[in-house]
Amino acid sequence: MNLENIRIVLVNTTHPGNIGAVARAMKNMGLSQLYLVEPKLFPSSEADARASGATDILASATVTLTLEEAVADASLVVGTSARGRHIPWPIMDPHQLAGVVASAGQQQVAIVFGREDRGLTNEELQICHHHVHIPSVESFSSLNVAAAVQVVAYELRMAFLRQSDAAKQAPQWGTPWDIELAEHRELELMFEHLESVLVEVEFLDPENPRQLMPRLRRLLQRAMPDKVEVNVLRGILTSVQKKSRSR
Amino acid sequence: MNLENIRIVLVNTTHPGNIGAVARAMKNMGLSQLYLVEPKLFPSSEADARASGATDILASATVTLTLEEAVADASLVVGTSARGRHIPWPIMDPHQLAGVVASAGQQQVAIVFGREDRGLTNEELQICHHHVHIPSVESFSSLNVAAAVQVVAYELRMAFLRQSDAAKQAPQWGTPWDIELAEHRELELMFEHLESVLVEVEFLDPENPRQLMPRLRRLLQRAMPDKVEVNVLRGILTSVQKKSRSR
Repeated sequence: MNLENIRIVLVNTTHPGNIGAVARAMKNMGLSQLYLVEPKLFPSSEADARASGATDILASATVTLTLEEAVADASLVVGTSARGRHIPWPIMDPHQLAGVVASAGQQQVAIVFGREDRGLTNEELQICHHHVHIPSVESFSSLNVAAAVQVVAYELRMAFLRQSDAAKQAPQWGTPWDIELAEHRELELMFEHLESVLVEVEFLDPENPRQLMPRLRRLLQRAMPDKVEVNVLRGILTSVQKKSRSR
Repeated sequence: MNLENIRIVLVNTTHPGNIGAVARAMKNMGLSQLYLVEPKLFPSSEADARASGATDILASATVTLTLEEAVADASLVVGTSARGRHIPWPIMDPHQLAGVVASAGQQQVAIVFGREDRGLTNEELQICHHHVHIPSVESFSSLNVAAAVQVVAYELRMAFLRQSDAAKQAPQWGTPWDIELAEHRELELMFEHLESVLVEVEFLDPENPRQLMPRLRRLLQRAMPDKVEVNVLRGILTSVQKKSRSR
């Protein structure tokens, strides 16, 4: 587990003070990679003030126009979500998330936080492999974005320290993933390929797609496919196309 | 475990915005008892704004002049601390703290957070039974006070939910503490008694007390004495005094 490989992605943050508070929380917990997707105002003196010394994280932050860009090279993309979205998605609490990230070894991980007033859109949540939910009180469930980052970063640090302690006590045997996981963009290309094949084979009606693609995404992303597996899937799709077109 | 019996105590908070952010974090996690020891400015519109709907917690907050007052009827008093104080004290991380609080049943619990710029004083830390430390990066260790409350409140909520889940699955056998724990003020009277006896028996030199009382506090507070035990200790002290004076 390498905290350097974990990025915090903030989508459309409205209040610059929150960006500063996020930077501080990250630095306190040993995280350093901050991505900002279309922030309303950045850089700003308010963010600097609330960062309280974590201005190095603000200075090195990456600003992007889309969420896609911010997560393109990540192998594990996790979105923060309230409960009860339209389609149920694999959901974890922050402690479970930290366990998954710890077992991801040296992979690039992106944890995505939504807007102050309405979180992430369904489309944004659907490109995430997993969702993480901080178990708040149902009648007052919306955490401040910096508070949410603090909780997640805290659990990541705790997992990191557990792993460091364990590493000190005993040599580590084996790694969970020998083959590199697929990157987000590789998965996206695979899903595009899949969708076109599904249309081609008339399983998917483009006029009435319902929730088919989100459900397939959920299934495959949950499995966190590696690069070889994605190549295999792509190979199958290509074969289906060839067959379909040769009729 | 009853989240209603857990109070968050903020000592000499300088920025009213932080008080509001603390209220929000508490309400998100199901806590409701807020105590403010000599806040610089309260109530305030800035606190209300940052509370983002948790103004009920601000409205019902208890303001006191001293930390003693704020924790007088608590049986477990925990102070948040950076590492490396003068005298080592029993120190836990927030996860361990939540476990201890969960096993405290219906006891009143106070968790004390210090000033934004310099935390709690040594004297304040010494009235705490335990210290809790959020394992931050050593070179950038100081969390925003609302962020620290958020992490602790999150761990308390997680423990509460685990206990609720466990309670649903199996009946609870036994309780860890049959006798009520001593309240803080009962312990204080006992320590005063102890100190006077130690002076009386010339073990403690009031001109040069060194760290004797803090060390005794640490020892006894760590044990979390119940009411009967405190009465026994007081009885011993009274006996010593009688003996000493009858010579």
